[in-house]
Amino acid sequence: MRSPMHQNQLTLILGAFQAAFLVIFALYGSYDASALPSKEKNVEEAVRMTNLYPLFQDTHVMIFIGFGFLMTFLKRYGFSAVSINMLLAVFTIQWGIIVRGMASAHNGFKFTISLEQLLTADFAAAVILISMGAMLGKLSPSQYVIMAFFETPVALIVEHICVHNLQINDVGGSIIVHAFGAYFGLACAKAFGKKEQRGHQNEGSTYHTDIFAMIGAIFLWIYWPSFNAAVAATDDARQRAVANTFLSLCACTMTTFLVSQAVDKHKRFDMVHIANSTLAGGVAIGTTANVVLEPYHAMIVGVIAGAVSVIGYKYITPFLSEKLGIHDTCGVNNLHGMPGLIAGFASIAFLFIYDESRYPAQYDKIYPGMARGEDGKRMFDEKTQALNQLMAIGLVFLASTVSGYITGLLLKLKIWDQVQDEEYYADGDYFETPGDYDFTSRIVT
Amino acid sequence: MRSPMHQNQLTLILGAFQAAFLVIFALYGSYDASALPSKEKNVEEAVRMTNLYPLFQDTHVMIFIGFGFLMTFLKRYGFSAVSINMLLAVFTIQWGIIVRGMASAHNGFKFTISLEQLLTADFAAAVILISMGAMLGKLSPSQYVIMAFFETPVALIVEHICVHNLQINDVGGSIIVHAFGAYFGLACAKAFGKKEQRGHQNEGSTYHTDIFAMIGAIFLWIYWPSFNAAVAATDDARQRAVANTFLSLCACTMTTFLVSQAVDKHKRFDMVHIANSTLAGGVAIGTTANVVLEPYHAMIVGVIAGAVSVIGYKYITPFLSEKLGIHDTCGVNNLHGMPGLIAGFASIAFLFIYDESRYPAQYDKIYPGMARGEDGKRMFDEKTQALNQLMAIGLVFLASTVSGYITGLLLKLKIWDQVQDEEYYADGDYFETPGDYDFTSRIVT
Amino acid sequence: MRSPMHQNQLTLILGAFQAAFLVIFALYGSYDASALPSKEKNVEEAVRMTNLYPLFQDTHVMIFIGFGFLMTFLKRYGFSAVSINMLLAVFTIQWGIIVRGMASAHNGFKFTISLEQLLTADFAAAVILISMGAMLGKLSPSQYVIMAFFETPVALIVEHICVHNLQINDVGGSIIVHAFGAYFGLACAKAFGKKEQRGHQNEGSTYHTDIFAMIGAIFLWIYWPSFNAAVAATDDARQRAVANTFLSLCACTMTTFLVSQAVDKHKRFDMVHIANSTLAGGVAIGTTANVVLEPYHAMIVGVIAGAVSVIGYKYITPFLSEKLGIHDTCGVNNLHGMPGLIAGFASIAFLFIYDESRYPAQYDKIYPGMARGEDGKRMFDEKTQALNQLMAIGLVFLASTVSGYITGLLLKLKIWDQVQDEEYYADGDYFETPGDYDFTSRIVT
Repeated sequence: MRSPMHQNQLTLILGAFQAAFLVIFALYGSYDASALPSKEKNVEEAVRMTNLYPLFQDTHVMIFIGFGFLMTFLKRYGFSAVSINMLLAVFTIQWGIIVRGMASAHNGFKFTISLEQLLTADFAAAVILISMGAMLGKLSPSQYVIMAFFETPVALIVEHICVHNLQINDVGGSIIVHAFGAYFGLACAKAFGKKEQRGHQNEGSTYHTDIFAMIGAIFLWIYWPSFNAAVAATDDARQRAVANTFLSLCACTMTTFLVSQAVDKHKRFDMVHIANSTLAGGVAIGTTANVVLEPYHAMIVGVIAGAVSVIGYKYITPFLSEKLGIHDTCGVNNLHGMPGLIAGFASIAFLFIYDESRYPAQYDKIYPGMARGEDGKRMFDEKTQALNQLMAIGLVFLASTVSGYITGLLLKLKIWDQVQDEEYYADGDYFETPGDYDFTSRIVT
Repeated sequence: MRSPMHQNQLTLILGAFQAAFLVIFALYGSYDASALPSKEKNVEEAVRMTNLYPLFQDTHVMIFIGFGFLMTFLKRYGFSAVSINMLLAVFTIQWGIIVRGMASAHNGFKFTISLEQLLTADFAAAVILISMGAMLGKLSPSQYVIMAFFETPVALIVEHICVHNLQINDVGGSIIVHAFGAYFGLACAKAFGKKEQRGHQNEGSTYHTDIFAMIGAIFLWIYWPSFNAAVAATDDARQRAVANTFLSLCACTMTTFLVSQAVDKHKRFDMVHIANSTLAGGVAIGTTANVVLEPYHAMIVGVIAGAVSVIGYKYITPFLSEKLGIHDTCGVNNLHGMPGLIAGFASIAFLFIYDESRYPAQYDKIYPGMARGEDGKRMFDEKTQALNQLMAIGLVFLASTVSGYITGLLLKLKIWDQVQDEEYYADGDYFETPGDYDFTSRIVT
Repeated sequence: MRSPMHQNQLTLILGAFQAAFLVIFALYGSYDASALPSKEKNVEEAVRMTNLYPLFQDTHVMIFIGFGFLMTFLKRYGFSAVSINMLLAVFTIQWGIIVRGMASAHNGFKFTISLEQLLTADFAAAVILISMGAMLGKLSPSQYVIMAFFETPVALIVEHICVHNLQINDVGGSIIVHAFGAYFGLACAKAFGKKEQRGHQNEGSTYHTDIFAMIGAIFLWIYWPSFNAAVAATDDARQRAVANTFLSLCACTMTTFLVSQAVDKHKRFDMVHIANSTLAGGVAIGTTANVVLEPYHAMIVGVIAGAVSVIGYKYITPFLSEKLGIHDTCGVNNLHGMPGLIAGFASIAFLFIYDESRYPAQYDKIYPGMARGEDGKRMFDEKTQALNQLMAIGLVFLASTVSGYITGLLLKLKIWDQVQDEEYYADGDYFETPGDYDFTSRIVT
């Protein structure tokens, strides 16, 4: 039995946070001029809805339908997957707007909100939902929210350092969103792990929950080009980001089927691979979606990502769980972690494969740190940029694992409502369930 | 047994209506110049597809996927929910184009059709689908169509009076769409009610139908900003409408989880709240999505709407059903009715919170009735506008309940095909069902 | 038992093809200038993402969610439906870009890629996925890929002839995409047919798989206007294509419900009709979506398509299966075949109903073959155009049936991995299935 304190914990947490959000927004938040009535708008502002909104909405579908339904594969955890996904997203969106706003504020703590802030808030939500994937089924709603509370500022400050100090290019956020979220989640899972979480009878799918998961998977797959293109600077860069992501995903999907069958002893496909590894190509091309200029380069990235991801699910996830005690429910290491690292290292490779002359009048929009001054000199050169990209990978890996591990330890404290051992990967303690719940989720032929 | 007359009734009704629609479109309908070939287009016409079409398509998803799947939660009524939703939508779209066209016609009965008419036809469909939610599982397909036939003109004439005579602002249609649809449905349910509809063994969900319903809920949630922004006049007003709706929904969703747990004796979440009350913030901000200029105001509206909606589901819906004989299957009072009224009253409050000076060069686009003439004088002032908004709420409430009640009485007539008592909330009499239908929809552990 | 050669066949096939695709893209493929960095862009290029991308994404949803989920209706074949749909799509997208690129190449084999090529690659995928519908449940993954390999170049060469030589208008691809895919599939089914495929115990749906299928059906329904409008030449033509498709679909949906009930002896609706025939209006208006200038003409087309499609499912599909040995799992003849032919013949009718004077300054954008030279003379007249449209229908029918039949014979060869008789319409041999698979997919009350 959960104690009354634990049972009411989430109510208090959500109440306190939402009240705090309201106060902070009231004191410091306001709309950007582009969203306010005025006589004059500059051209770019006047078309923000036309240019950016469709890409924003595609991303929005990825966050709420994509991540939400992808995680419904567990046979007894569908309500939680889709609902807690929604809760963490709206929590992180508000908290992320605040943190990012204050980090960028030039005027005390005041921050402004336009469509771009809503979009980047969705990106922040993605970080947390990826970590949720590693912890899926192991945390109570309170603990998920606490995790999001701690993870969000670390992720956004690291992002701020990567983008503004190291001036890296990571247009689709593969390093600062995907790799961060994955390694935070893995470290958190390590610190939080106990043996009852592994080999649990509730951990598995049913025929229809695997199909529910495909709703999420395919919407992620379809809209991934929008995710990678949304913040690219020019129309051609956006189109290029779309095409690179599209081709990488196609090649990745072919490879996923190929490797999924090849590594199975009965030569059958595994729906976990189909629903997850097919997406690795979107992550792996993310950092350089606006950089790559040759279609086949995008496809090679996709092939590598698909192969690595399936191999990860087949061999690395069990190894991490059994040998290192890192239980990763959704296998985020294979969908977001390793592909995110591939994206990072690809960004270094492509820096040398394509030189400045290939990007007439745009090199500095991709790499602001290499902008030429009026004297034609650059702040820094390709090697420095490469080093910065590398440092960003290192910083993200270090910051995510350290903060994830600490968060995991924190979540073990008995002050938090804890999931009981027999109720891992199950909705029953936290959601009212219909009369068929036990039957439907426990059928074995 | 249904009599042959009743069994063939829908065939005759649909045939008659579709024939009539064809004749009316042939006699009076034509495409707007913006959709016809011509040498010259003005600038606005030339970009209608670019500016409006994405918002239109988002709305379209809400109507057919959103409403359709949200109503699949009933364990034995999934085919009807998603199919009759589709049927009523296409019926109302055609009928709505005709009614609205003729109401606005300046040239005999002739009306024109462009993307905007398709969009507002989707809005008309929303009215009817909300009423369908209150009646869900209690009407035969014929009766649903008859309901839509009577409701559509009343709703659109009331809308016409509100927009053109009272000149109210209701950009997201919370008063004229949501409140109208909800109170028409409740009044209809009252007139049509009998005790066999309450506490029926078919009225309930299964584990997977609750997940199906979340497909609808989340798509409604995602695209609600588009619904509220679609008819706003300028790009900044659209962006503002998006941001206000987005923030209201986020705050509403947090509040929904909080209150859902707080009011439950086992401190569990209820999927009915997660799937419905999380959306109330979209309704409650709808009327003023283009008006609100401070982010935290939108969030406050969302918090209130979420709390009211959950409390509605928990206490008011059972009260209405048991004490007043108003059985509201989907609880549309909590998702559309009360939040629609909140939206209406908020529109009066915000009229005084933000004065004209806050909307440079745009006040008259939001409130055409307060446009200043060349002499700087206004047709009417804030108080008149406020009174008009209030009168619109009153008119909508009155017209919807009276017309809904009369329609409910009419639907009781034995000339209509009636659902048999034991077949309420069940597909079996109207759809061919697969062999597992009875088993799958009647599992109790 | 499948032999090791057959079990590993797909691995080899996918590996060989993906390697070949990579080499060909590396040697001959490059991005279009509009997707590459440059100082100068012309106006149209600069807004491609804004104008075309939302329509592209809608189409993308149709291909992966629409077709994928529509085919999940089979009770034991859901994994295959949604996964193999994805595999064939990514295969055909890459293969289609190559074939179409080389067919249009002016510079050796070199081809360029921009958003338009991604869009038309999605169209190519649609052809193959329609044929997949006819063969659903009867082919092994290897055979599906081989089918796509042979079908794609035939379809695209026929398309090339229709568009560039015959200069037909087929803006929504109803002839060259839908009719081609359907009749290829039927001919393939004929050649591949054996009696064990008919009346199979696995061929049927369950209550929830029919609801899964509606996800696909409704997304197809919603986004069909985008499919028909995407390649139209001007903004007004796109808006017209949207409106015509929208109205045709509405009228078609009404008619589907009407006829579905009318032809059923218990006067019940059939979900197969609701999920499929409601879409026939989108196909039937496809060829002339940019041509039709009167709303009621679009509606008439929709009514005819809906009626023909339901009657097809009720009477023609069983006839083809039982009398002619053409087993069409999804009934693609009723959704794509006959409606595609209706679209073709409608294109001839509308050519005479609307004359050149109705399309000021645009006639030649719709019918390039009737462009007037500087002397005001036309390359050819309405009769020639009509004849060309007719010849295109004939060519498509002939080429699709011949190539489909040959492909069907080829697929019977024992060198290909073949589905065992008892495993038709079942996932078990090709996908790892959860423990409830047999139970869930075999419930009979």
